[in-house]
Amino acid sequence: MSEIATGGAAETQGAARRGRGAGGAAARRQSRTGQRPVSLPFVTRQLPPTDILSAEAVEIIEANADMLMEEVGVEYRDDAEALQLWKEAGADVKGERVHFPKGLCRELMKTAPSQFVQHARNPARNVTIGGRHTVFAPVYGPPFVRDLEGKRRYATIEDFRNFVKLAYMAPAIHHSGGTVCEPVDIAVNKRHLDMVLAHMTLSDKPFMGSVTAPERAEDTVAMARVLFGEEFVDANCVITSLINCNSPLVMDATMLGALKVYAKANQATVVSPFIVGGAMSPVTVAGTLAQVLCEATSAIALTQLCRKGAPVIFGTFATAISMQSGAPSFGTPEPAQVLLGAAQFARRYNLPFRSGGSLTGAKLPDAQAAYESANTLWPAMAAGVNFMLHAAGWLEGGLVSSYEKFIMDADQLAAAQKMAAGIDMSENGQAMSAIREVGPGSHYLGCTHTRENFQTAFHVSNVADNNSFEQWELEGGKRTEERANTIARQWLEQYEPPPLDPGMAEALRDFVQQKKDSMPDAFT
Amino acid sequence: MSEIATGGAAETQGAARRGRGAGGAAARRQSRTGQRPVSLPFVTRQLPPTDILSAEAVEIIEANADMLMEEVGVEYRDDAEALQLWKEAGADVKGERVHFPKGLCRELMKTAPSQFVQHARNPARNVTIGGRHTVFAPVYGPPFVRDLEGKRRYATIEDFRNFVKLAYMAPAIHHSGGTVCEPVDIAVNKRHLDMVLAHMTLSDKPFMGSVTAPERAEDTVAMARVLFGEEFVDANCVITSLINCNSPLVMDATMLGALKVYAKANQATVVSPFIVGGAMSPVTVAGTLAQVLCEATSAIALTQLCRKGAPVIFGTFATAISMQSGAPSFGTPEPAQVLLGAAQFARRYNLPFRSGGSLTGAKLPDAQAAYESANTLWPAMAAGVNFMLHAAGWLEGGLVSSYEKFIMDADQLAAAQKMAAGIDMSENGQAMSAIREVGPGSHYLGCTHTRENFQTAFHVSNVADNNSFEQWELEGGKRTEERANTIARQWLEQYEPPPLDPGMAEALRDFVQQKKDSMPDAFT
Repeated sequence: MSEIATGGAAETQGAARRGRGAGGAAARRQSRTGQRPVSLPFVTRQLPPTDILSAEAVEIIEANADMLMEEVGVEYRDDAEALQLWKEAGADVKGERVHFPKGLCRELMKTAPSQFVQHARNPARNVTIGGRHTVFAPVYGPPFVRDLEGKRRYATIEDFRNFVKLAYMAPAIHHSGGTVCEPVDIAVNKRHLDMVLAHMTLSDKPFMGSVTAPERAEDTVAMARVLFGEEFVDANCVITSLINCNSPLVMDATMLGALKVYAKANQATVVSPFIVGGAMSPVTVAGTLAQVLCEATSAIALTQLCRKGAPVIFGTFATAISMQSGAPSFGTPEPAQVLLGAAQFARRYNLPFRSGGSLTGAKLPDAQAAYESANTLWPAMAAGVNFMLHAAGWLEGGLVSSYEKFIMDADQLAAAQKMAAGIDMSENGQAMSAIREVGPGSHYLGCTHTRENFQTAFHVSNVADNNSFEQWELEGGKRTEERANTIARQWLEQYEPPPLDPGMAEALRDFVQQKKDSMPDAFT
Repeated sequence: MSEIATGGAAETQGAARRGRGAGGAAARRQSRTGQRPVSLPFVTRQLPPTDILSAEAVEIIEANADMLMEEVGVEYRDDAEALQLWKEAGADVKGERVHFPKGLCRELMKTAPSQFVQHARNPARNVTIGGRHTVFAPVYGPPFVRDLEGKRRYATIEDFRNFVKLAYMAPAIHHSGGTVCEPVDIAVNKRHLDMVLAHMTLSDKPFMGSVTAPERAEDTVAMARVLFGEEFVDANCVITSLINCNSPLVMDATMLGALKVYAKANQATVVSPFIVGGAMSPVTVAGTLAQVLCEATSAIALTQLCRKGAPVIFGTFATAISMQSGAPSFGTPEPAQVLLGAAQFARRYNLPFRSGGSLTGAKLPDAQAAYESANTLWPAMAAGVNFMLHAAGWLEGGLVSSYEKFIMDADQLAAAQKMAAGIDMSENGQAMSAIREVGPGSHYLGCTHTRENFQTAFHVSNVADNNSFEQWELEGGKRTEERANTIARQWLEQYEPPPLDPGMAEALRDFVQQKKDSMPDAFT
């Protein structure tokens, strides 16, 4: 029995309903039939985070960042408002280059919350981002998919909807994510509307907003106001959004535009230096960390200049360039060290941290994909990542969303969640009665304690095959991804949307249609 | 460039030679051609270990173990000498059941060294076991191999020799291991001689001795005396051996026989409770840990009753039973928690710790194999494992030694070694010159610091493919294990044995031949 069947935590948590749409009844139905997955609440980690940097190393890197922020500065491009905000805050602005007096950004960051709740339309799916909590969200951004026929092709809105459905059904995926794949069959200036609509209607988990233009961010906020109510949105976080810095040391107008919209609307931004080490940062970990501090702390501080107290997540996406192919490589040690180091600074500054994910450069969901994904997931959990984008489905350096890998990764996330829960030290967990009952030279299979606990004792993978070689061969000698393929098909077949008030669904669809009708299609 | 090509640490370390056999010249030759791997020294971890148990949990589990050792006790079967040793040490012996007064075993363990050197015939390959060090050793025990034609079949002595060669050539495998596969084409009572001979002649890394019968352990010690000299062996550790407890709470005559031979000869034993959680221990982590303490501490104490100061390693091999198939499952969270908890006790008792490995229940070297292996390797590194058996080549729950997985795992070990080395905080590591040179909006590809550091900056996998999809497809769209297959073939082709004095080689072969001639073949 796996967490999938024994879950149900969402039910007990979800007793409180708000007026608009709640999944309680559906969850109860799922749990009774035992056929459909039931969501786990977000992770609460019982294991202590790993400090990779000594106290002295922390001081050195912070001092280096301070020096760089003052001497070299960060460029804020094509955004007069941002430059004005920095001038008023006391920075030294020369053209588009902003130089920061020592400690200014750290001081400004202090108004950001150390943890916050992102609300979902089903309150049972609310997530707490920060502290000892970890939220898993799906892959973000790929223009391609590897589909269930094994074909690599451009992603469509149907794929997008499928990944939203799979994320809704995966017990250890706590968040619906954002651009789970890029629906290239929809006009560039309109696809954000279909994407947000899919998250709002096909799932009841929290979701991410559009960042590709300020007006698309505005649309996201407007749709959230329809779903949650205007006052609620102003007072609460209902959207998270991904603001990538343009490393090294540049913030561009597109990202700044979205950042300002969300921060002013009191919605969360994930401010992430996006680093391919050796290309966009120095080839060393300590050098990269100093640069990450410059980029992240200045952008985080800007959110607080837009609106004090706006929720913001310190992000770090790190990879390393392959000096042979020039492509980024994933799951190697140095980016894992950057991740752990950056997390340590986020803790120092009392901010939620985003990093990690099931990253890989592999072209197929094979051993390379799995090793590399685990090599990011483990340090991310050790670092105490609070918001983990790309936690499932990422393939080929983020160019591809893979259905099979999504299922495989989701299974790993359930295992990571169990791992993070730590060791049960209750009397039942201590199991002294079992050892006394069984004694030397016997076995525990039938003892009272085993019979009382076996159903929930061990994480059970729905993807791994633990049968004998002979049984496995008899069942077709299937590879892992073939088993994952079967599960993905089953889940999509069994999918039922979470309940949503029909009036609300219509209101959202109307909003989308009106917006779409108001402008011609644009494909670039 | 990978560690493989840029290594050479063994050379600088290996300047000091002893009379018999040294790999210095060969290593220099390899390094110059750049074609053959050069060994890395054992790992020295810079990352702090993870304490999974609170101080209170440690006290509870230790108290539980104390209670069990006194009340329930441990059975020492068919070994009057062991029982006599326990009587003299103050234990309460009833038949074959030994009951331990509180604290007795902890007191006796204090004479065991907290770390020790296992000597290799090439001193450059000596390993330090304990403290902040980690030694990677290959898979141990499988009766089957999955060969380079993809066939699953019984292992032979030729396979055995091949795995010894691969372990010799793998840069991040520091130890030649023991039963890298079971050469079933050789008589049961003679195969240990061929195995030890292969380790001694085809590799110059440290190795493990036979434990399947006391007289085979004696043969191993005798061969070590030929290779290293009698006095040297009495004063130094040159053999490690694997003593599995017969969980729950039984030590059998075979294992006790080998334990006594090695401990009396001042050679290292790895005393390992071998636990399939739910079958051989309670289904809970805290319960399993209490049992592990009973088994491990009593057997470790016995080594010190045999010879005070004999090197001994606190071992824990943990897995969890699949309640569906009854087979052990690998890479799941609960055994990882047992591993981390047991490591914490080994640190508490100031003893070297053995656990971990690239374990999996998968039948193929596919994604399941990789996820599960990583799911053991990561907690093992976080736990600060000192001696890691099964670090490469293990497949199918330990029934199969896989050539392809051996290569894939060895690549992961090199990455783990780089990860464990921590962050370079030197001036060059801080890379301030690079950030100042490049500034905002440019890239680091051609800057001075990058040019000076790129060759050694990042771990480079020899198995992963980081090319573009198009390039990968052009090159045949190969899976990870196909690339590993090619590497295994190349390594076996390029293998050259480390130099060994011909007289010594002859003396070892003579010993083996005389022993073989002295007894008829036995096949059970």
